[in-house]
Amino acid sequence: MPSAIESLLTSNIRPSIQRMRILDYLRQKKNHPTVETIFNDLAPEIPTLSKTTVYNTLQLLKENGLVISLDLGEGYIRYDADTSPHLHFECEKCGGVFDIFMAPEDLRKKLPAGFVLKETRVYAFGVCAKCAKVNG
Amino acid sequence: MPSAIESLLTSNIRPSIQRMRILDYLRQKKNHPTVETIFNDLAPEIPTLSKTTVYNTLQLLKENGLVISLDLGEGYIRYDADTSPHLHFECEKCGGVFDIFMAPEDLRKKLPAGFVLKETRVYAFGVCAKCAKVNG
Repeated sequence: MPSAIESLLTSNIRPSIQRMRILDYLRQKKNHPTVETIFNDLAPEIPTLSKTTVYNTLQLLKENGLVISLDLGEGYIRYDADTSPHLHFECEKCGGVFDIFMAPEDLRKKLPAGFVLKETRVYAFGVCAKCAKVNG
Repeated sequence: MPSAIESLLTSNIRPSIQRMRILDYLRQKKNHPTVETIFNDLAPEIPTLSKTTVYNTLQLLKENGLVISLDLGEGYIRYDADTSPHLHFECEKCGGVFDIFMAPEDLRKKLPAGFVLKETRVYAFGVCAKCAKVNG
């Protein structure tokens, strides 16, 4: 994987310290952190950091395909620098979010040993037939 | 399908006017409304209705498996009285949410004519191996 600075330059994003650290942090931590968590963890080493900067940076990284966002219905958004196709399993007891690298149809039969599946939710995003027609 | 009053009684929920109307409304409308939309549509005919009552009723219906909730990352929750397995397609232009009755793996090849798929997100919910062990 290219370094954070290389990834930013490739996406034509100016590699500020804050952007590099946030992207690095997301790549190192695999815990799908929220804006709050990222801010709390990085603020001690970057005194000028604000939650708004964290949020804006994540939006920028997301628009450029360097991170994805997860909404598990908890009332806040989590972020993940692993943009390869995978799905997310949330434990209803500990709240942990696990990366699961398999096709949705394999979920029930191939889950890691010991995991108990209770529900899956699939959301698709795109353009409906009517809007696709209107917008050419 | 049983009537709203029958469904409530079967679930041991006291069939108040408000509960019956909210469940009926969700079954008639297929537009995946929010608390706000339901409140605005029903308040004229039920003057004692409050947003809190709508919210609490939806939670009660959800806990009893009579409705499901959808979180499409818009910052609010939508509700759906169709609890059969299906997935949801959100149009990025008009914001409409469409019910799609197919397996996730068929999404790309069998979408309704004219629909353009850009992204799918799959979330799984259950218990992780560690918590399953701890909790017996």
